[in-house]
Amino acid sequence: MGEFELIRKYFAAAPCAQGGEGIALGIGDDCALLAVPPGEQLAISTDTLVAGVHFADPCDPFLLGQRSLAVAVSDLAAMGAHPLAFTLALTTPTVDADWLQRYAQGLNTMALSCGVGLVGGDTTRGPLSLTLTVFGRVPAGLALTRSGARPGDLLCVGGELGNAAGALPLVLGQRSAEASIAEPLLAHYWSPQPQLALGQALRGKATSALDISDGLLADCGHIAKASSVSLLIERQKLPLSAPLLAFLGDEGARDAALSGGDDYVLAFTLPPAELAPLLADGWPIHVIGCVAPGQGVVLLDAAGQDVTPVIHGYQHFRETL
Amino acid sequence: MGEFELIRKYFAAAPCAQGGEGIALGIGDDCALLAVPPGEQLAISTDTLVAGVHFADPCDPFLLGQRSLAVAVSDLAAMGAHPLAFTLALTTPTVDADWLQRYAQGLNTMALSCGVGLVGGDTTRGPLSLTLTVFGRVPAGLALTRSGARPGDLLCVGGELGNAAGALPLVLGQRSAEASIAEPLLAHYWSPQPQLALGQALRGKATSALDISDGLLADCGHIAKASSVSLLIERQKLPLSAPLLAFLGDEGARDAALSGGDDYVLAFTLPPAELAPLLADGWPIHVIGCVAPGQGVVLLDAAGQDVTPVIHGYQHFRETL
Repeated sequence: MGEFELIRKYFAAAPCAQGGEGIALGIGDDCALLAVPPGEQLAISTDTLVAGVHFADPCDPFLLGQRSLAVAVSDLAAMGAHPLAFTLALTTPTVDADWLQRYAQGLNTMALSCGVGLVGGDTTRGPLSLTLTVFGRVPAGLALTRSGARPGDLLCVGGELGNAAGALPLVLGQRSAEASIAEPLLAHYWSPQPQLALGQALRGKATSALDISDGLLADCGHIAKASSVSLLIERQKLPLSAPLLAFLGDEGARDAALSGGDDYVLAFTLPPAELAPLLADGWPIHVIGCVAPGQGVVLLDAAGQDVTPVIHGYQHFRETL
Repeated sequence: MGEFELIRKYFAAAPCAQGGEGIALGIGDDCALLAVPPGEQLAISTDTLVAGVHFADPCDPFLLGQRSLAVAVSDLAAMGAHPLAFTLALTTPTVDADWLQRYAQGLNTMALSCGVGLVGGDTTRGPLSLTLTVFGRVPAGLALTRSGARPGDLLCVGGELGNAAGALPLVLGQRSAEASIAEPLLAHYWSPQPQLALGQALRGKATSALDISDGLLADCGHIAKASSVSLLIERQKLPLSAPLLAFLGDEGARDAALSGGDDYVLAFTLPPAELAPLLADGWPIHVIGCVAPGQGVVLLDAAGQDVTPVIHGYQHFRETL
């Protein structure tokens, strides 16, 4: 048995590789087969994480397994899709059985949490990188896109911002913090929770949506461009966690929320009449601004002054096709 | 505009990124959306090519573009699927505009030839590698799998074998040959033609199928294992091209056909009654052996003697999940 056949066995043995909803044929043939119910469409997204670029190497492979899948599944949440399956293309320089087993365990934990089954992929020798492609289903015509925001809509997010960016100096060992601060921030970084239920609840209600990966300002720029509108963000309305405020202070926390990235929280636009019923149902929705005619993103301070920074967000040397 | 946004523009501008059959939403949102007709299933396959492992670096980016997609689409052919779309995850150490443009042109040429549209992906910084995920549709229950071969079936291939393996010393600059030999072999290596039409013609007829990527012996081993049968291969019946025979001689050509890999020709099993009508329709089918009870692959010489080599095929340090 070749070394890479051993790898295959690690992943094929994971509970998340044992089939599931919509999976007509899983690991082991030339293709996997997915069944899509009549009236629904298949949503697809691909994300690559490269060692030394998108994650530190070495790092805890269990946490990497969780994070690599969560990041990809978050794109399904952003479309309002119901998750079905994923493929994994793993490139690794060596076959380290312990590393692989723990990576597979982390992947499996997040897969079961998100309800996706591993249906195939490829394992190759080379510098460490991971490409995950995720699949979901969504009723035809109801997917949440970036292009439907209209002037007068509210600009909303689905939870606290900036926690993952706050965790980054801890992840990189540049700073330390007491456990009551470090643990919640690191949890947000290593195992973000894709907002799948919220995305599905927003179908037919939100006029646009995406998941925040590049930072709120940069990602709102994507909605503004796709919808040909202007998004006004009120700096004082950003939802911030107590650990982030304790760690970075008020100004630092707001900067992390605006430009930090890696939140994997949904940002979306909502006609005002849609807000109250969603809040009544208990969805964690924070209004942070509104949609106006024009083009681009404008950041307003508490006095209503334009304090938009010149450069939006971190230049990732990364671009989603 | 960031460098990677420039890359996105290269690919988004390619004709193959302008939509097509089944593509409800293409490049530019959190997910692409595919429509799958009622009664059909979605076939999915992922392949990674790493520089220095699966292709020489540097190499002609146009040819790499063709080859990287053809290799992936060939898995759709092996399932009898009708091709729809693909995603590209490109990791590159630098943004070389000329290289990217020529890679995109090669990719586009093969995409239009195969009838697949580029619907998304990811571009990241790191050591050069390419992960392509391809999507096709196939009527539910009619996909060609590896697991249905039955004793008494004929073992067939869809064309000449060993040409790409014969080309390898030319690709690596280890040998040279006159143009009448080199050109057809190199064409087979750099732009294999996925046997999509043949795969679809075999639906409901072939009892098992795959595309030969690891070498005939190794890949027949996959069918034998999945179907719990023995496959008998007659060494004298292997279809070989005149350039390959001229380049490697009879023995060398047969070895290349058995163990070389990279053919991307279909291998399949067929009840004898199915053969004549397919041949009458002009399909390029070569019978190279048969299916017997037992387990594994047996290679027979012209005298019917067992000449099975101990090691089947090249150990790729690669495994499809």
